Amino acid sequence: MNIDMIRAAATRLNGHARATPLLNSPFLDDIAGRRVWIKPECLQHTGSFKFRGALSALSALDDATRSAGVIAFSSGNHAQGVALAAQMHGVPAVIVMPSDAPSLKIENTKALGAEVVLYERGSGNRDAIGAQLAEERGLTLIKPFDEPQVIAGQGTTGLEIAEQAAAVGVVAADVIVCCGGGGFTSGIALALEAEAPGLRVRPAEPDGFDDVTRSLRSGTIECNTAVSGNICDAIITPQPGDLTFPIMHRLCGPGLVVSEDEALYAMAQAFLRLKLVAEPGGAVALAAALCRQDQIEGDDVIVTISGGNVDPDLFQRALDTLE
Amino acid sequence: MNIDMIRAAATRLNGHARATPLLNSPFLDDIAGRRVWIKPECLQHTGSFKFRGALSALSALDDATRSAGVIAFSSGNHAQGVALAAQMHGVPAVIVMPSDAPSLKIENTKALGAEVVLYERGSGNRDAIGAQLAEERGLTLIKPFDEPQVIAGQGTTGLEIAEQAAAVGVVAADVIVCCGGGGFTSGIALALEAEAPGLRVRPAEPDGFDDVTRSLRSGTIECNTAVSGNICDAIITPQPGDLTFPIMHRLCGPGLVVSEDEALYAMAQAFLRLKLVAEPGGAVALAAALCRQDQIEGDDVIVTISGGNVDPDLFQRALDTLE
Repeated sequence: MNIDMIRAAATRLNGHARATPLLNSPFLDDIAGRRVWIKPECLQHTGSFKFRGALSALSALDDATRSAGVIAFSSGNHAQGVALAAQMHGVPAVIVMPSDAPSLKIENTKALGAEVVLYERGSGNRDAIGAQLAEERGLTLIKPFDEPQVIAGQGTTGLEIAEQAAAVGVVAADVIVCCGGGGFTSGIALALEAEAPGLRVRPAEPDGFDDVTRSLRSGTIECNTAVSGNICDAIITPQPGDLTFPIMHRLCGPGLVVSEDEALYAMAQAFLRLKLVAEPGGAVALAAALCRQDQIEGDDVIVTISGGNVDPDLFQRALDTLE
Repeated sequence: MNIDMIRAAATRLNGHARATPLLNSPFLDDIAGRRVWIKPECLQHTGSFKFRGALSALSALDDATRSAGVIAFSSGNHAQGVALAAQMHGVPAVIVMPSDAPSLKIENTKALGAEVVLYERGSGNRDAIGAQLAEERGLTLIKPFDEPQVIAGQGTTGLEIAEQAAAVGVVAADVIVCCGGGGFTSGIALALEAEAPGLRVRPAEPDGFDDVTRSLRSGTIECNTAVSGNICDAIITPQPGDLTFPIMHRLCGPGLVVSEDEALYAMAQAFLRLKLVAEPGGAVALAAALCRQDQIEGDDVIVTISGGNVDPDLFQRALDTLE
């Protein structure tokens, strides 16, 4: 896992993934007490950064392997990313989703051309279903984060941040990244190590699901006690990855932890000041910049908005905080 | 009024106005029956294209004139555009607003450093107040659309569209523009005439406030019978401008008219598929692409989202259409 893999992924993604802009607002600067620069991956294809990693992984396969098709386990953003990447390559994608996944997400994944196979959550047969399908059809598993080509794809966001930060004169700042398993965080950290060493990545997580923050503190992989029950579901995973954690441990600053209410507040500010739709998990980095000023140093801070796939009802809860 | 003024405005705006991306979604393509390309000026500074025209006009003034300050009449997007442009230049801005303007818009305009002078709507003294202030303080009036340097600034959007459309291989298409007084529409039309003659601008307007559509049809300036009472308030003006109408008449295709419900539907689709916040008036062009397929020709259509300054309550009405 190195910078050359990220640069190679950028070449493969060029013209297919979207180069998202770097945004700002004087109103957010006022709240944060420093300049806030926003990298809105909610504007990426399928509404999250996950498309970068999925397309990177698919495009790195050899033709014969890829044409047999791919398989992924996901009820959310990774599902849509893999589905669209497979559609672009004209190869089959099977997405194994829990039967209680939101119907809109199931429909979206199907609309992007994927075959959706449902399983009963808790019955424990998810991996068995996946393994059987993979073997029968010769499908290649695309893991959501602990996979070098996926990390390389997410890291292309970091290459863009390095260039865009330099263009606005920012050479030293914390870069707060919404963090689940650590694919996005470690990919960006590797890219910045090479391209903008004054920019230091810090993971942001929801309160109670701060496995990466605790792992960075202890120096060893720590688990969450729960894996559901938070509106930031898109970035909740049991623990950091075996590949991603050593990278984060080497390169990242301390984690930042925010509450659900702070994530909703950040979503409302993104609506009001950036005209962007952020999902709760996608808003935790902005929430950290706005609500944890005393844990951040410097005149500038860069934050990712990792995704925007949020149901209208939950978005309304964020808007309610404005009244 | 010519392309050289637009190119000169682009040079002045470079590094200050935001070059907005060109977005798309396969889900919107399916609804529209053709590829839909979105130019999201809701992502522009102050949340609308108006900042381009305001900064163009201010930066075109000579130093002595500009340092005395500027004045504008607006309760909305033009107010914020002029306020930020003046703040960037470090010169005073006075914005004359109706006393019943939404308090958030008044606060935002003040927060951008402008002095807000309120008047009673309907009392008819708005122009007198403005004229007196302008004379006393030597302020220069920045008109919202019927002003060459404002049109030139809005036209810079057209330069970007020409380049971005070519990059995705689109050389012939309708470009639907959210249309009020016609500054945005005529500016983009002039830019495309020079840079991408296969792209034809068509204004989009709300039902009942279709002065430009009727004027284009009759060949002479027609008025609206009402100037309020529609959620698309940001793009409602009494009639097309004396400068903008001849340009639109020479260059634009027929207007497209949509209902309030169709504007809300387009806002909901922008939320769902683009992760963008559009205001009702800013969504009429997308609404036309999605709901007036039979009045559009070709495999591609380009639409502007002209702004995203919408109150949470009204945004909720749009989200309600998804249920």
